[in-house]
Amino acid sequence: MSIRVTVWHEFRHEKKNPAVAAIYPQGIHETLAAHLRVSPDVLVRTAVLDEPEHGLTDDVLSATDVMLWWGHGYHGDVRDDIAAKVQQRVLEGMGLIVLHSAHHAKPFKRLMGTTCNLKWRESGDKEILWVTKPHHPITAGIEDHFTLDHEEMYGEYFDVPEPMETLLISSFTGGEVFRSGMTWTRGAGKIFYFRPGHETFPTYHNANVLRIIGNAVRWCAPAAGGVVPPGCPNPPVGWV
Amino acid sequence: MSIRVTVWHEFRHEKKNPAVAAIYPQGIHETLAAHLRVSPDVLVRTAVLDEPEHGLTDDVLSATDVMLWWGHGYHGDVRDDIAAKVQQRVLEGMGLIVLHSAHHAKPFKRLMGTTCNLKWRESGDKEILWVTKPHHPITAGIEDHFTLDHEEMYGEYFDVPEPMETLLISSFTGGEVFRSGMTWTRGAGKIFYFRPGHETFPTYHNANVLRIIGNAVRWCAPAAGGVVPPGCPNPPVGWV
Amino acid sequence: MSIRVTVWHEFRHEKKNPAVAAIYPQGIHETLAAHLRVSPDVLVRTAVLDEPEHGLTDDVLSATDVMLWWGHGYHGDVRDDIAAKVQQRVLEGMGLIVLHSAHHAKPFKRLMGTTCNLKWRESGDKEILWVTKPHHPITAGIEDHFTLDHEEMYGEYFDVPEPMETLLISSFTGGEVFRSGMTWTRGAGKIFYFRPGHETFPTYHNANVLRIIGNAVRWCAPAAGGVVPPGCPNPPVGWV
Amino acid sequence: MSIRVTVWHEFRHEKKNPAVAAIYPQGIHETLAAHLRVSPDVLVRTAVLDEPEHGLTDDVLSATDVMLWWGHGYHGDVRDDIAAKVQQRVLEGMGLIVLHSAHHAKPFKRLMGTTCNLKWRESGDKEILWVTKPHHPITAGIEDHFTLDHEEMYGEYFDVPEPMETLLISSFTGGEVFRSGMTWTRGAGKIFYFRPGHETFPTYHNANVLRIIGNAVRWCAPAAGGVVPPGCPNPPVGWV
Repeated sequence: MSIRVTVWHEFRHEKKNPAVAAIYPQGIHETLAAHLRVSPDVLVRTAVLDEPEHGLTDDVLSATDVMLWWGHGYHGDVRDDIAAKVQQRVLEGMGLIVLHSAHHAKPFKRLMGTTCNLKWRESGDKEILWVTKPHHPITAGIEDHFTLDHEEMYGEYFDVPEPMETLLISSFTGGEVFRSGMTWTRGAGKIFYFRPGHETFPTYHNANVLRIIGNAVRWCAPAAGGVVPPGCPNPPVGWV
Repeated sequence: MSIRVTVWHEFRHEKKNPAVAAIYPQGIHETLAAHLRVSPDVLVRTAVLDEPEHGLTDDVLSATDVMLWWGHGYHGDVRDDIAAKVQQRVLEGMGLIVLHSAHHAKPFKRLMGTTCNLKWRESGDKEILWVTKPHHPITAGIEDHFTLDHEEMYGEYFDVPEPMETLLISSFTGGEVFRSGMTWTRGAGKIFYFRPGHETFPTYHNANVLRIIGNAVRWCAPAAGGVVPPGCPNPPVGWV
Repeated sequence: MSIRVTVWHEFRHEKKNPAVAAIYPQGIHETLAAHLRVSPDVLVRTAVLDEPEHGLTDDVLSATDVMLWWGHGYHGDVRDDIAAKVQQRVLEGMGLIVLHSAHHAKPFKRLMGTTCNLKWRESGDKEILWVTKPHHPITAGIEDHFTLDHEEMYGEYFDVPEPMETLLISSFTGGEVFRSGMTWTRGAGKIFYFRPGHETFPTYHNANVLRIIGNAVRWCAPAAGGVVPPGCPNPPVGWV
Repeated sequence: MSIRVTVWHEFRHEKKNPAVAAIYPQGIHETLAAHLRVSPDVLVRTAVLDEPEHGLTDDVLSATDVMLWWGHGYHGDVRDDIAAKVQQRVLEGMGLIVLHSAHHAKPFKRLMGTTCNLKWRESGDKEILWVTKPHHPITAGIEDHFTLDHEEMYGEYFDVPEPMETLLISSFTGGEVFRSGMTWTRGAGKIFYFRPGHETFPTYHNANVLRIIGNAVRWCAPAAGGVVPPGCPNPPVGWV
């Protein structure tokens, strides 16, 4: 059965900053979508901030198994009611892959319950990503580490709940460290946060980064046949 | 050093239902506060829904180390901005003890990120609470199980994030089960959910229930000397 | 790609107790194997205690993706060196499904590091199993609960490490509770403990029990392409 | 009530390597013990490998609330039966603080169930330790990071079970990272692994390192009044 993916993107940086457009001429969402579309088992659509309802109508949401979310400069422009719908879909089983600066995206913050604050520096540090959970489906096929020549630095303390699994930890030229790949479940949904992806670097053209994202799509996809009871049932005496 | 506790309560059921008032003449909050005040290391105040700002002014919040929260019928009357402040205080280190039907309280739902839905039945089932983490500070002094003759039934699935620790699991006359004692951390704060406490039963007069709540106050109290950096620092190259 | 399963069984109770043989004429291992063999993506072999090396030669171990383990009365007869090899294979990525009284099996105790003690009573209690993680691959297709008319009672405290996920909790006629389905990872391997399965009851003919075991085989199967570095590498300066 | 601490140490490196003896003239154990003894609420004894029963008689074990363990070159000389007793005491509630190369100590490996393998290099890298859980009792009083000028490098993948909490992550001059402070519970006992402490560097004279160890002693101390039922009770029908 196919996995139905929606890649959500702000898609404004590319329109304002020629350096970003040079790296992602069609936008980060199209770069990610094109990579995922190579696999016949994945059906990909995209949605962006400036579409009506941010492209996330009820029809789109109910037909999405896994959502990728990239946002950076315009988190505040996302409507609260739509952020709540995305959260609700995760609780019903939709997978969510949270990319880079989307650590501050409304749906992610609502699901985590924390500030999701961190340290940062736009200085083009070299980033080395170390695998702390080999053999996990998301890190399958990745060596013990890989390197990105230039990235934005993110540093601890990263204010998120203790994860189910820590899959990747980064070090940076400056000596900082960051938990770059973490998983959680919320309700019936699986969540993966993946750190790299600053818009001014060609991170989403890197083969290791793309492999991890592709692995994560499959890991996040909901289990077939699951049933989550809605609401708060009030069963009578003797029903069991 | 003393632990500064604020017991928050809706305090409406007692005024509307004589059966509740008969069990808790001064209100559930005063019953809990009176128990906690016996210990000289705990300073207790109370706050209720119908006070200005629900009794949770900035001064009260900043002077609270551990908050107890009991709510049931009036979750929707709690102001969103005050719920957000309570959440923020937990992230800064305030402990939170969430009692019974406060599983649907706004601050708890914001911290969990899930629906916090469950099954329920007001049928006076016998509840047996089993310790699944003996030697934990919260279950210290509790035998392997204890019984409440009559309680509201809560049943799984309870839609909360996987806990850090499962301390207690209940069974009911009807055969249902429920994870009745669970812990999480969020930011610098510690959270304990404790199931029993339906307003029409004398649960908060039970010695085991009170012992667990007293233990939890001490477990939830913030560590001295902790420092959480506010916001998102932007340190320069070479700062380390 | 097929999943290669080895069902390990003591296979002594059936030879000594006609009541057990009446329920499992070919042995519990063959009942489980026959069920799993219906799926064309699973290759099943069996191994039993009284075979040379308990049927677990190096060739068998290295050709096993997922092992099921049922033991009860003869844990002490398992050779320590073979228990260590099973543990090592789990750390390398082999899935392990630990059934019922195998809570005291040597490989499981070595992987948990705890006593794995619990309460028990052979009284034919009714067991109700409640799903505490709907939509999980292992509970996919299972309603919110199901019932076994007669089973051995297991009760808390169950001395195992806090699990990654609690999937099922049982209640019994006597009012006891037990965490009946739990997951852990150790090294590259995934572990699932599943409580039911006393040899004097037809538990492994129950459709829900068999469905959960079948689901678990797929959940425990190792991710393709994983690499776990053996030993303790000593990389030189400048190797990154 | 006082916390009774036993500092266990191999105490052979100091006798063979003058460079180690120059840093720790009385041995690492005496340096740690002297620091802990400053606090009037801690009663400290030491025990070393070459004493009868490694200094860990039944009397010493039963009178120990928290044990520190430092070993490096002689893990194999520890008797299996004594390692098993230490493990058993942890399950009964004794705290265990595992220092540096004791990642391969027998009691720790038995409690973890994994290989506890890691990468390493004796090259005097600079180590920066970052706090990933501020406000935790163990990191109380520690800034967001601190630095050790020269240490042995440890790198991921560190083969231990997913921790309850990740408190500290290190980066090294070479770009490697390591989860340097992690907690687990096993049975009634609390375990803290703390990475720094190579014998050829003055790490245990560092104020931050000593503060963390002192904090950990208090965090690991068993809760008063806890009760863990021994063995596997077999309660009759109707006992609840």
